[in-house]
Amino acid sequence: MNLFNLRDFQDVALEKLDPVYYDYFAGGAQDEVTVQANEAAFRRLSLVPRVLRGAGRPELGGALLGQATSMPVLLAPTAFHRLAHPAGEVETARAAAEAGVIMMAAMLSTVAVEEVAATGATLWFQLYLQPDLGFTESLVRRAEEAGCKALVVTVDSPALGRNERGDRNDFHDLPAGMSCPNLRGDGDVGQVVLSPEFSWRHVDWLRGITSLPIVLKGILHPADAALAVEHGAAAVIVSNHGGRQLDTMPPTIDRLPLIADAVRGQVPLLLDGGVRRGTDVIKALALGAQAVAIGRPVMWGLSVAGAAGVAKVLSLLRAELVNALTICGVAAPGEVPRDLVVP
Amino acid sequence: MNLFNLRDFQDVALEKLDPVYYDYFAGGAQDEVTVQANEAAFRRLSLVPRVLRGAGRPELGGALLGQATSMPVLLAPTAFHRLAHPAGEVETARAAAEAGVIMMAAMLSTVAVEEVAATGATLWFQLYLQPDLGFTESLVRRAEEAGCKALVVTVDSPALGRNERGDRNDFHDLPAGMSCPNLRGDGDVGQVVLSPEFSWRHVDWLRGITSLPIVLKGILHPADAALAVEHGAAAVIVSNHGGRQLDTMPPTIDRLPLIADAVRGQVPLLLDGGVRRGTDVIKALALGAQAVAIGRPVMWGLSVAGAAGVAKVLSLLRAELVNALTICGVAAPGEVPRDLVVP
Amino acid sequence: MNLFNLRDFQDVALEKLDPVYYDYFAGGAQDEVTVQANEAAFRRLSLVPRVLRGAGRPELGGALLGQATSMPVLLAPTAFHRLAHPAGEVETARAAAEAGVIMMAAMLSTVAVEEVAATGATLWFQLYLQPDLGFTESLVRRAEEAGCKALVVTVDSPALGRNERGDRNDFHDLPAGMSCPNLRGDGDVGQVVLSPEFSWRHVDWLRGITSLPIVLKGILHPADAALAVEHGAAAVIVSNHGGRQLDTMPPTIDRLPLIADAVRGQVPLLLDGGVRRGTDVIKALALGAQAVAIGRPVMWGLSVAGAAGVAKVLSLLRAELVNALTICGVAAPGEVPRDLVVP
Amino acid sequence: MNLFNLRDFQDVALEKLDPVYYDYFAGGAQDEVTVQANEAAFRRLSLVPRVLRGAGRPELGGALLGQATSMPVLLAPTAFHRLAHPAGEVETARAAAEAGVIMMAAMLSTVAVEEVAATGATLWFQLYLQPDLGFTESLVRRAEEAGCKALVVTVDSPALGRNERGDRNDFHDLPAGMSCPNLRGDGDVGQVVLSPEFSWRHVDWLRGITSLPIVLKGILHPADAALAVEHGAAAVIVSNHGGRQLDTMPPTIDRLPLIADAVRGQVPLLLDGGVRRGTDVIKALALGAQAVAIGRPVMWGLSVAGAAGVAKVLSLLRAELVNALTICGVAAPGEVPRDLVVP
Repeated sequence: MNLFNLRDFQDVALEKLDPVYYDYFAGGAQDEVTVQANEAAFRRLSLVPRVLRGAGRPELGGALLGQATSMPVLLAPTAFHRLAHPAGEVETARAAAEAGVIMMAAMLSTVAVEEVAATGATLWFQLYLQPDLGFTESLVRRAEEAGCKALVVTVDSPALGRNERGDRNDFHDLPAGMSCPNLRGDGDVGQVVLSPEFSWRHVDWLRGITSLPIVLKGILHPADAALAVEHGAAAVIVSNHGGRQLDTMPPTIDRLPLIADAVRGQVPLLLDGGVRRGTDVIKALALGAQAVAIGRPVMWGLSVAGAAGVAKVLSLLRAELVNALTICGVAAPGEVPRDLVVP
Repeated sequence: MNLFNLRDFQDVALEKLDPVYYDYFAGGAQDEVTVQANEAAFRRLSLVPRVLRGAGRPELGGALLGQATSMPVLLAPTAFHRLAHPAGEVETARAAAEAGVIMMAAMLSTVAVEEVAATGATLWFQLYLQPDLGFTESLVRRAEEAGCKALVVTVDSPALGRNERGDRNDFHDLPAGMSCPNLRGDGDVGQVVLSPEFSWRHVDWLRGITSLPIVLKGILHPADAALAVEHGAAAVIVSNHGGRQLDTMPPTIDRLPLIADAVRGQVPLLLDGGVRRGTDVIKALALGAQAVAIGRPVMWGLSVAGAAGVAKVLSLLRAELVNALTICGVAAPGEVPRDLVVP
Repeated sequence: MNLFNLRDFQDVALEKLDPVYYDYFAGGAQDEVTVQANEAAFRRLSLVPRVLRGAGRPELGGALLGQATSMPVLLAPTAFHRLAHPAGEVETARAAAEAGVIMMAAMLSTVAVEEVAATGATLWFQLYLQPDLGFTESLVRRAEEAGCKALVVTVDSPALGRNERGDRNDFHDLPAGMSCPNLRGDGDVGQVVLSPEFSWRHVDWLRGITSLPIVLKGILHPADAALAVEHGAAAVIVSNHGGRQLDTMPPTIDRLPLIADAVRGQVPLLLDGGVRRGTDVIKALALGAQAVAIGRPVMWGLSVAGAAGVAKVLSLLRAELVNALTICGVAAPGEVPRDLVVP
Repeated sequence: MNLFNLRDFQDVALEKLDPVYYDYFAGGAQDEVTVQANEAAFRRLSLVPRVLRGAGRPELGGALLGQATSMPVLLAPTAFHRLAHPAGEVETARAAAEAGVIMMAAMLSTVAVEEVAATGATLWFQLYLQPDLGFTESLVRRAEEAGCKALVVTVDSPALGRNERGDRNDFHDLPAGMSCPNLRGDGDVGQVVLSPEFSWRHVDWLRGITSLPIVLKGILHPADAALAVEHGAAAVIVSNHGGRQLDTMPPTIDRLPLIADAVRGQVPLLLDGGVRRGTDVIKALALGAQAVAIGRPVMWGLSVAGAAGVAKVLSLLRAELVNALTICGVAAPGEVPRDLVVP
């Protein structure tokens, strides 16, 4: 198998996976303009390395919200890993643990958060606020008790995005024997409720019931980033949900500088959407992110070879990032200069 | 049949329709640069949703020129519906009535306006001013008596656009047994006269002979929009005639902000040209339109399944618009903020 | 034959012509970036018609340098018409005479200027200045005596452009029996000399030996346009030689506004390069040209059907221009407003 | 064989060369965005010739760092010429000598610098600084003794770029019998060490141990160009290593004006990356370069016909440059005006 970069994993996954599941992971909202734009926006940005900096080989390690990470790359929360591999999220978490990176464990996991946590991976728990606040609180308690180190609240989903690949494939339910054990009852996916009633006061409420840091995921407007800081968010993830929510949302990397200007370093910024190369990571760092998250590449790695596949995805990205930082004369992720990137 | 969005209907119509009629509906002026640009311009605009607005599920209903509409989408006036379906405009109107949306009934209808009105649909009557003003006035009276609620005067047609698909297909006359009963005499299409003699004083004249609100359709220049207001237009439709008149006219959505600046809310603005998605509708609303109109998608729906096809087109667009407004945190069409759209 | 627009003629010519001759006419310098850019630049410009102008049907006729023309379109000077049709330039001139348009008769004509003039067409004689000034003067005299009404001096050719299609086809000589009778001696093409020695003083010299108006063809820089006026040019043709001289010269329509600003109406401006549509003509008029010239479309018309083919090309373009002016609410070529065109 | 321009040589080389070696020469870093962007950036720039300058036929000859050159084109340093031709760099150098152009002889040559120099070509020796400074100094001495006239220090390579074509072809070692005799010992390619430890003080050190002029190759940031001048560089080469080091580096021609502004004529500027046409050369001259270098086209020439192939590449480029300068009315490379180029 020719697996020399993250896109190679997608090609192999396309061969290995049930086409319906492949479409579920690969697809996005409607015409998938945003899905494509996320990657294209990175390609349009240029890197202008400095030379003769004597920077030495870069050190990638650091910490995010107090948790160590071996590189500024996290695993984005993605649903239904058992569609990609029988052992599902457990395999993914093993790879994260081994690689020393943080995994954002999805509420719509096909393995219970307690089992995922048992791998030893550092987890942040991703949450859709549920109209039944009691249930929401019970989920927070499970995450706390499982040892999750932060809550990642997805705020871009007052409704489910319209994935037409799923419609065409008539894919609306998990296969028999697969469920979402983080949800109450029998794990019927239908149980998750996306509601347009949620507002900033629910963030305040959440902050009141937990001491975990709260990360808000899915912010594209600077005014919302400022509100996030005001309402005590510990970090903000600039995200368009991988182009899966509303088509023609702008590429995240194009919005990052505006968000960085609004947040002015008060909280760390993360970004996901279209990160496929070490050069993409360094571009996000230059434009104001402390780290990035990858979603689909992890699913391709998981599909191709379980934990080993995810590990390979992470090691390829790490190698590319080391190479990019070295050639750019930068000693550490936190030292990427703003003017490294030009449009 | 895979009918999950408006473009799917075009694909099925391409299979079902006589190719000559398909070309008539799908085609545009000359190289069809404008036909393609209309849709492409929407894709180039990005939506930046706000989050945690607690807006609830949006309400789409409202009123236009005093007429209720269940959503900010009208049926654009299009000619010769019987080419698409044996019952022609009656089927279209039934779908409009059922969906609670306004239909702009075309002067070049293959069914008399009285029959179309008998469906119970709310109609606005579209009119090309005719050099024989007496005939023009008689048409206005027919529209009034049929219960039409407004006159839509098409002002972008001092001559017929050059549709080369029609030339290549040698399509210049309606088939035997089909006619335009709104026209005097036997309905020979040749009877309609497009004239470059018409000017603003004819708008004044029209205003003098009817109490119906007069909507001017086909304005792209801000100065003309200002003149429209000055001459008592009740509304303006920003339109390039679906790219059918003069090729390389600009996309309507690109002209809308300029027109909105010129009109400054004095009259409602509508827009047609390239609207295929709920996200397109919300973009037009953000940039200054009170509503949009769709033309070709209605013809594809009519071709595919008559009134049921048109109804399905409308319900798909409605569902997409509800989804888009919800994800954008907007409670109603009239509350779409300007900064939701970025280039 | 489907001949509904100028590009259709190219398609038919491609079938009819010897491929080597087709390449000679169609080709341009090197990678033909400019050849394509000329047409693409027109497509990128948009037309924003005004409405309800009551302008009536436009009148296209006018005069250029004192010569009547039935529309603001001239025949650009092109070489070797007998490659396209046995009767060569005589056929072209017949069509020009019949259509009432001015033909720029090329020095590299395969028919003597006297024979071309005998058709009754209004001719301007195109000239490459020759190092042998005596020969140059003798050519001027022949043009004067043949009744040519102006001299068109091509100033963009201090060397021959590099046409790689010709190189690949090994096409360097006219076929046996074909010659350039405007040149001294036996008409060997090699006799024409393109020289980088010519300068503005040669324009002054030319003005001293003839009372014919001198038109300078091939100007793209505003400073050169100003120099042309200073040196007594009667008109300037904004031209990149149809993309045949130096590749990556800019599209002419993009340079026109700069030239118009420099010339400030002191002399008429003409433009050639990529004009294929009535909308292209109106764009050039809006941006400062008094008229345009077409080259390749004339050769395609000639190839397809001799004088009748050229006549059809001219009548199609005329009809498109009438249509475009009518829809734009413009009564005459000289009344096209600047703001009709937006980028 | 159709060899009418530099790209033709690539096409023929593709047929003649071992595909693995072809990929080695043609490929670049990762997705090869920069490889393609280098050429595309030249196409996007337009040339606006001046007319009637009376400039005569241009003279291309001049001098660079005191060495005569017959035109402002050098041979960029490229590795492993014996992959393209059995006699390797000796053939290349013969062509350079015959054409009177300067060859930058690569440290990773498959022929020893002494043998290359024996051809009589004017050589500049390209150098990667090595952590073993003693070895670096010994290389400098060999270059001096071989008669090289300058040292070209590649500063864009603190690490090896990631060439995925090479990975896919599993091409990591020279074939048996081929080595790099400029390197110590048996010529194992692995011996070259690219290190991120080097800094400006190593440039100072190098200046201290040799009287050869030092050219710094691989600068894209104006601040680094200013530092180069400060540290005594005799010339700067604006280069992104032909897109082989870090993908999405910007096209060199786009960076040249910024570098020229920073250097303000204190030292000569050279540029490589994507030069394939005489028009590309003139664009670089207009934007501030004294000369350009070509890499891949030389390798294609060498692959196709050894020294004769390289000679043909050079003569084609020379002819194109003469043609371009002539048509632009420019008498010499040093007289290209800045406003000849527009975006």
